[in-house]
Amino acid sequence: RRTGFPEIIFAQGKTPVQTAAIFRRLQASGKPVLATRVTREQADAVQNVTPDVEYDDVARLLRWWPPERPQTMRPGFVAVVCAGTADLPVAEEAAGTAEFLGSPVERVYDVGVAGLHRLIDQLSVLRKANAIIVVAGMEGALPSVVGGLVSAPVVAVPTSVGYGAHLNGLAPLLTMLNSCAAGVAVVNIDNGFGAGYYAALIHRSQVESTEMRDIAHGKNPAL
Amino acid sequence: RRTGFPEIIFAQGKTPVQTAAIFRRLQASGKPVLATRVTREQADAVQNVTPDVEYDDVARLLRWWPPERPQTMRPGFVAVVCAGTADLPVAEEAAGTAEFLGSPVERVYDVGVAGLHRLIDQLSVLRKANAIIVVAGMEGALPSVVGGLVSAPVVAVPTSVGYGAHLNGLAPLLTMLNSCAAGVAVVNIDNGFGAGYYAALIHRSQVESTEMRDIAHGKNPAL
Amino acid sequence: RRTGFPEIIFAQGKTPVQTAAIFRRLQASGKPVLATRVTREQADAVQNVTPDVEYDDVARLLRWWPPERPQTMRPGFVAVVCAGTADLPVAEEAAGTAEFLGSPVERVYDVGVAGLHRLIDQLSVLRKANAIIVVAGMEGALPSVVGGLVSAPVVAVPTSVGYGAHLNGLAPLLTMLNSCAAGVAVVNIDNGFGAGYYAALIHRSQVESTEMRDIAHGKNPAL
Amino acid sequence: RRTGFPEIIFAQGKTPVQTAAIFRRLQASGKPVLATRVTREQADAVQNVTPDVEYDDVARLLRWWPPERPQTMRPGFVAVVCAGTADLPVAEEAAGTAEFLGSPVERVYDVGVAGLHRLIDQLSVLRKANAIIVVAGMEGALPSVVGGLVSAPVVAVPTSVGYGAHLNGLAPLLTMLNSCAAGVAVVNIDNGFGAGYYAALIHRSQVESTEMRDIAHGKNPAL
Amino acid sequence: RRTGFPEIIFAQGKTPVQTAAIFRRLQASGKPVLATRVTREQADAVQNVTPDVEYDDVARLLRWWPPERPQTMRPGFVAVVCAGTADLPVAEEAAGTAEFLGSPVERVYDVGVAGLHRLIDQLSVLRKANAIIVVAGMEGALPSVVGGLVSAPVVAVPTSVGYGAHLNGLAPLLTMLNSCAAGVAVVNIDNGFGAGYYAALIHRSQVESTEMRDIAHGKNPAL
Amino acid sequence: RRTGFPEIIFAQGKTPVQTAAIFRRLQASGKPVLATRVTREQADAVQNVTPDVEYDDVARLLRWWPPERPQTMRPGFVAVVCAGTADLPVAEEAAGTAEFLGSPVERVYDVGVAGLHRLIDQLSVLRKANAIIVVAGMEGALPSVVGGLVSAPVVAVPTSVGYGAHLNGLAPLLTMLNSCAAGVAVVNIDNGFGAGYYAALIHRSQVESTEMRDIAHGKNPAL
Amino acid sequence: RRTGFPEIIFAQGKTPVQTAAIFRRLQASGKPVLATRVTREQADAVQNVTPDVEYDDVARLLRWWPPERPQTMRPGFVAVVCAGTADLPVAEEAAGTAEFLGSPVERVYDVGVAGLHRLIDQLSVLRKANAIIVVAGMEGALPSVVGGLVSAPVVAVPTSVGYGAHLNGLAPLLTMLNSCAAGVAVVNIDNGFGAGYYAALIHRSQVESTEMRDIAHGKNPAL
Amino acid sequence: RRTGFPEIIFAQGKTPVQTAAIFRRLQASGKPVLATRVTREQADAVQNVTPDVEYDDVARLLRWWPPERPQTMRPGFVAVVCAGTADLPVAEEAAGTAEFLGSPVERVYDVGVAGLHRLIDQLSVLRKANAIIVVAGMEGALPSVVGGLVSAPVVAVPTSVGYGAHLNGLAPLLTMLNSCAAGVAVVNIDNGFGAGYYAALIHRSQVESTEMRDIAHGKNPAL
Ligand SMILES: Nc1ncnc2c1ncn2[C@@H]1O[C@H](COP(=O)(O)O)[C@@H](O)[C@H]1O
Ligand SMILES: Nc1ncnc2c1ncn2[C@@H]1O[C@H](COP(=O)(O)O)[C@@H](O)[C@H]1O
Ligand SMILES: Nc1ncnc2c1ncn2[C@@H]1O[C@H](COP(=O)(O)O)[C@@H](O)[C@H]1O
Ligand SMILES: Nc1ncnc2c1ncn2[C@@H]1O[C@H](COP(=O)(O)O)[C@@H](O)[C@H]1O
Ligand SMILES: [Mg+2]
Ligand SMILES: [Mg+2]
Ligand SMILES: [Mg+2]
Ligand SMILES: [Mg+2]
Ligand SMILES: [Mg+2]
Ligand SMILES: [Mg+2]
Ligand SMILES: [Mg+2]
Ligand SMILES: [Mg+2]
Repeated sequence: RRTGFPEIIFAQGKTPVQTAAIFRRLQASGKPVLATRVTREQADAVQNVTPDVEYDDVARLLRWWPPERPQTMRPGFVAVVCAGTADLPVAEEAAGTAEFLGSPVERVYDVGVAGLHRLIDQLSVLRKANAIIVVAGMEGALPSVVGGLVSAPVVAVPTSVGYGAHLNGLAPLLTMLNSCAAGVAVVNIDNGFGAGYYAALIHRSQVESTEMRDIAHGKNPAL
Repeated sequence: RRTGFPEIIFAQGKTPVQTAAIFRRLQASGKPVLATRVTREQADAVQNVTPDVEYDDVARLLRWWPPERPQTMRPGFVAVVCAGTADLPVAEEAAGTAEFLGSPVERVYDVGVAGLHRLIDQLSVLRKANAIIVVAGMEGALPSVVGGLVSAPVVAVPTSVGYGAHLNGLAPLLTMLNSCAAGVAVVNIDNGFGAGYYAALIHRSQVESTEMRDIAHGKNPAL
Repeated sequence: RRTGFPEIIFAQGKTPVQTAAIFRRLQASGKPVLATRVTREQADAVQNVTPDVEYDDVARLLRWWPPERPQTMRPGFVAVVCAGTADLPVAEEAAGTAEFLGSPVERVYDVGVAGLHRLIDQLSVLRKANAIIVVAGMEGALPSVVGGLVSAPVVAVPTSVGYGAHLNGLAPLLTMLNSCAAGVAVVNIDNGFGAGYYAALIHRSQVESTEMRDIAHGKNPAL
Repeated sequence: RRTGFPEIIFAQGKTPVQTAAIFRRLQASGKPVLATRVTREQADAVQNVTPDVEYDDVARLLRWWPPERPQTMRPGFVAVVCAGTADLPVAEEAAGTAEFLGSPVERVYDVGVAGLHRLIDQLSVLRKANAIIVVAGMEGALPSVVGGLVSAPVVAVPTSVGYGAHLNGLAPLLTMLNSCAAGVAVVNIDNGFGAGYYAALIHRSQVESTEMRDIAHGKNPAL
Repeated sequence: RRTGFPEIIFAQGKTPVQTAAIFRRLQASGKPVLATRVTREQADAVQNVTPDVEYDDVARLLRWWPPERPQTMRPGFVAVVCAGTADLPVAEEAAGTAEFLGSPVERVYDVGVAGLHRLIDQLSVLRKANAIIVVAGMEGALPSVVGGLVSAPVVAVPTSVGYGAHLNGLAPLLTMLNSCAAGVAVVNIDNGFGAGYYAALIHRSQVESTEMRDIAHGKNPAL
Repeated sequence: RRTGFPEIIFAQGKTPVQTAAIFRRLQASGKPVLATRVTREQADAVQNVTPDVEYDDVARLLRWWPPERPQTMRPGFVAVVCAGTADLPVAEEAAGTAEFLGSPVERVYDVGVAGLHRLIDQLSVLRKANAIIVVAGMEGALPSVVGGLVSAPVVAVPTSVGYGAHLNGLAPLLTMLNSCAAGVAVVNIDNGFGAGYYAALIHRSQVESTEMRDIAHGKNPAL
Repeated sequence: RRTGFPEIIFAQGKTPVQTAAIFRRLQASGKPVLATRVTREQADAVQNVTPDVEYDDVARLLRWWPPERPQTMRPGFVAVVCAGTADLPVAEEAAGTAEFLGSPVERVYDVGVAGLHRLIDQLSVLRKANAIIVVAGMEGALPSVVGGLVSAPVVAVPTSVGYGAHLNGLAPLLTMLNSCAAGVAVVNIDNGFGAGYYAALIHRSQVESTEMRDIAHGKNPAL
Repeated sequence: RRTGFPEIIFAQGKTPVQTAAIFRRLQASGKPVLATRVTREQADAVQNVTPDVEYDDVARLLRWWPPERPQTMRPGFVAVVCAGTADLPVAEEAAGTAEFLGSPVERVYDVGVAGLHRLIDQLSVLRKANAIIVVAGMEGALPSVVGGLVSAPVVAVPTSVGYGAHLNGLAPLLTMLNSCAAGVAVVNIDNGFGAGYYAALIHRSQVESTEMRDIAHGKNPAL
């Protein structure tokens, strides 16, 4: 595949039978397989027909690697930042996707704009990250604050967690698009997958260009 | 008047002649007069017919006190916080309104969520305030951050400053309504007047209840 | 905690097991504990592991005080005003939160703008309140009417009760933000907790400043 | 014409020349002519070509009656209620339209929900009206309050007067559609004409059915 | 009651027990009782405690008249117009409400703008009506077409029946507010009750003014 | 060009100089040239540099045919229907575009849903049309009514003509998308060009398939 | 029927019993019958009372032809294009409707804008189509891309498939209305029926005009 | 500065005098200065007080480098892709910003989704880019198509260019957020600056990590 990344199944709206069939078809290609938005029921259907498939029920991800091609990770890491329990599924979807695509992840959870000290305590981790995913529901202010503290690219993910004038995530989406901090780009509401993919893409491009040069110097890069 | 506060003129949409006429009528009552959203043209019309009226062309406020009843200020202060130049007219409308109603104002300008250190430098001022007005356009995240740092009531004012998905202030309005910091209430977009009035109301209620007790103890309060 | 108010749990979206675990953890700190948006099922989980926790199934609040630190109330009161049955859960969330934070509450229920006499009958109570919470669904006109009748700060709470062009509470939210009565600030749709917290904050600031002076005069305030 | 009401010109978007031409054509039919949303420039163009046309520059109405058919008014009246200066053009458009269609109008201006006493002072007029038009911008709460006080049908007109979350009149429009008072129906934002027409229609239907009976009894009704 | 109409219970959101309790309380006043938005379960609860209460499960109305005060109807009628099956519950809510309030109803169903001949076939009925309620979902064009054909006041009711860009009734609501036919006013989406009430109010005002005159002439009107 | 239709210039947002330059460049290709949304100023710039360019200032179209390739029209016609003066520019943009692309146009103007007889008078023309464009502002009900009366495909064009809850054309756009008449498809608000193009495309496809057969039978079609 | 097309039942919101009754009534007319948005339960109810009715549970269509009038298809075809599994129900509703109305359908599924080669592989099919239906959820970009590649009229159908800022189909609806490719018209979200009907209408008009001429030449067309 | 990038002035809403003053102040720091959204009038004010400031009136950017610190560019490039004339100001703002921050730019203009061949002709350039900015108004489909063709991160910028249901850029914004191509992140409507900054950030992070390694190997990188 052109992107060098494996095909990914978007399971939402598929029947368990359809999901299992597509999963098996992609396994047959001999490359790693990821499925997102997988319900417990869909996961069971897949695991019934093929062993060694890993299901993460918070992230709602199904992951599989061919035995002859175990997962390898590139140097450096992606940070995934969020405020709390309610945003965890989206944060974990982002983290699990980035890991699947070869980027180690540092989780910086339980930090929020209403308790800045917890965020500031984690600054040294954030400043070492190759790319930073910030997941936020409620008012969605966290990416602006993080963006102002770091120089790595920030991928902001609004979540649908909130009520009333939250409008199922439109409120934090607008917040993030209007961020006063430069260095922030945005993906769709609840799109943890998209953010994980984008951060891994940035991370890979940093490492690959290094490796390209390495290759030019006769070395054999891991990925 | 029931509220103990003077009548206020909302000049927007009135002709200069109408504005001057209403201003004079209220002056005749012998109480201080405030007009908001006053254009230079309206201000000239008023100042032509009555001397000693003070016009603030940033805040777009016209203020007048009867000679026999000069302005007095209550102890303590209201803090007015904002990020920068573009929000100044709204911040000054809030500040000027609060001052007119007897609350001294400390201005904490040029602080924004993308540069937290400038905000944190001002923390000691913020923590002494009786009430805090936070004015913000763009993504409107400032009230949440301030609300998390202080225990005084925060009055949040979204401004129409921004572009694109800012929707003329709807974006920061939604941000503020969804604030994850408790202790934040919101007024209409660009409603500096409403915020200044509300903060002065809180401030007065704090001081007055003190004074009521003082009165019960035989003292004669200033206001 | 900086605010002097106990930590509060937002139970919505948490499992019963998570809720009980967090509740116990906060109890261990020896301070009063409040949880909001608590379902009957979550309440059972908490009450199973810890005695003496009070559940209010209209307000959906769980409250607990350490035996050695029973609830004390400050002088004065917060008024909670609403039109009727459908708004009761939000009104009670506001009332219960304010009480938990030490503010006695006077409930002024069953008053609405289409039956003004019932509201006017309660005017003497409203005019004595230290702060007034007005909860309204439908067209959300009540805060403007109340705001025009009193001089205490009004905290307006739109509710999601209505249908059609009510847009799940956006209609009364907009009404309240556009209030022609000065002295009205607004919290999120259905955010009874936020209103109760805000009103208690105002109330406390009025009494505390009094008490500060009292303390300066050598007295030992209750709270 | 089927409705028994004269043809009416909606001048908005027409050139002065077009407006004058259409006006003259309708005059030729020998019936009264009304044009709405008429600018001063359009009015001049009409008045230049035909005498005795009355222009009201607040209501932006042009009115003409054939000499042989002077205006007659039916018994009873329509009340037009509004809060203030800014809503006057819409209120006057409503009033002028109703008058043109034969309904006398009582103006009840300068009443608003934040100053209930002024409204209540006018209750006896309101309770005598055959139909009531209530014009309101800002939060649009006035029709609900009036609707709760009277038993005549209320025609509510939201205006585009306001700012911020007012959304050019959508806020009071939603308020009025969600009115908790039964007996309120709504027309488009700023549609003073539509309200005046509707109220006159109701008024006429009340009087006409009376007159029909009178006719059956051999009397010759005025209209 | 000021309006001369009985109190009405809005059952939506009430428990069966609450509904029955309120229903009985109002019966005790000796006046007719109407409840709207009544589920089968709520109806059972009421019918269990009080006999002779009539439930209409399409209109979702519960109606009761005191034995000593059977329903009487005024002369003339209200027409209720709609396109089809899906709009029937709202149309019947309107019809049932108007009937309860003393206005006979002529139902003109199964007419729609895409089949004009069926509408035109009913023109003679429509032109005799004292007031006309037009209920429409989909694109909501029917009130404009009817309004252009008749001279009685039209009360337009948008319904939430539709899908996609229908936005749960906002589409026909906007259509109706923008009606190019004068003589159309609008109530909230699905508010059959409000439309029935408004039409009965108009109808009553036509008949009552007649009767007032009759009374002045010594006759004893039916209602 | 693949579509067999000439290139078209969208002049909006271009400077007069840019417009003239692009116009000349396309003329050089020897094919007819159309520019839409052309201001008088842009038209002057084009006409200054190249003769024989026709400007229609209602439709805001500039049209040019190479001398050796004069315009030919296909048999049959497209009907363009609209209610009145205000919609004329959009209707004429549609008509002028269709004509430019070889479809004769019958204009059916001054028909509206509030005066059905005028529409019905034109039924025989409408029923002969190969395709029908219906342009409507206000409530946008006309396409549904026309769609119910004819069997040709209807292309509906909402216009931005209206005020208040018209939302610059969103109201009639929604109306048209929800049309209860099958056989109606919609283009963007004010997109007369798009409707004219689409109708001409349908018309051409009808005639061309005929001609294809004719060609197969050895005839030489005009276009 | 005027359109020459059979009556069609919109089953959504009808009870199984109602659906079966209407279906039988239309069968009695001796013409083919189509019902759309039919649930399995409704389908059972119809199939219980009348044999030989075909149910497609993906398209949710019920179809029946009178024995003496079997389905005939016109020459040429309509192409139905979509990206994948989730859009299939809408695509099949469109396809099944067009087939029912006599247009053969070529399905071009599993093509999307993020994998252009699959679309380009199908170009020869698309370029032969008499009309093209493009169904798309997500960002809705497919109709613009297809529209740029072909000269047949494109009927675009947005679907409600997506999440977050997809707004239940509003996002692709807006995309399609703003298409930069001329030759695209749009129907309501998920309105596969409307698109199938519209494409068949275009297709029939192409063939019929041919046949009309044939008839004039003495031939007997198939349909 | 933490980000290693110079301070940038957002000139919108500032007076010419304010702009010049801020510009000079930043020059005094001896680092390069960029101002965005600069009008001709503001540019004149700056150029009057300081020489050698470069103004780009399409991009509306003012740029200055200290004589002793001329601009240096990193290896590789950012591609900026857009469809045409109307999007040029935003595309040039993006390009000029990226260049200012040290990233060479390849412009791929005049490509749009309705003419895929022009885009595909440029594929080899796109596939060599370190990051790709795609600017699009109208329906905003271009980023999805580009994202499907390349593996570099795509930064999508919706523009406010369009009309009708374009909603000043909301339509393409939603399109981009719902992109079916992974590897696309979005910035605010018309935010060319934000996109240029973000792309340069990614580009720098790719090169810097390379250089870091170089440094570890004893080389002295240019930037
Ligand atoms: N959670 C997600 N949200 C949006 N897109 C996704 C998600 N997961 C996977 N995708 C995209 O969906 C495509 C597969 O869709 P499908 O063919 O329906 O399985 C993949 O190529 C991904 O780019
Ligand atoms: N009903 C409520 N609505 C909004 N915020 C709340 C509510 N109840 C509690 N909170 C806030 O939520 C915070 C706790 O969130 P959590 O950590 O998820 O339990 C508290 O500090 C409160 O400020
Ligand atoms: N379907 C309805 N929609 C809106 N308001 C209603 C409806 N039915 C009754 N009402 C109003 O609701 C009031 C009673 O509300 P409640 O006190 O909650 O029963 C009545 O006075 C009616 O004006
Ligand atoms: N009024 C219009 N509205 C929308 N698109 C148009 C309009 N007029 C022309 N176009 C399209 O705009 C394209 C030309 O755009 P441009 O290259 O900017 O001149 C043409 O191919 C047409 O499809
Ligand atoms: Mg940063
Ligand atoms: Mg706080
Ligand atoms: Mg007040
Ligand atoms: Mg009333
Ligand atoms: Mg009428
Ligand atoms: Mg038709
Ligand atoms: Mg095409
Ligand atoms: Mg890609």
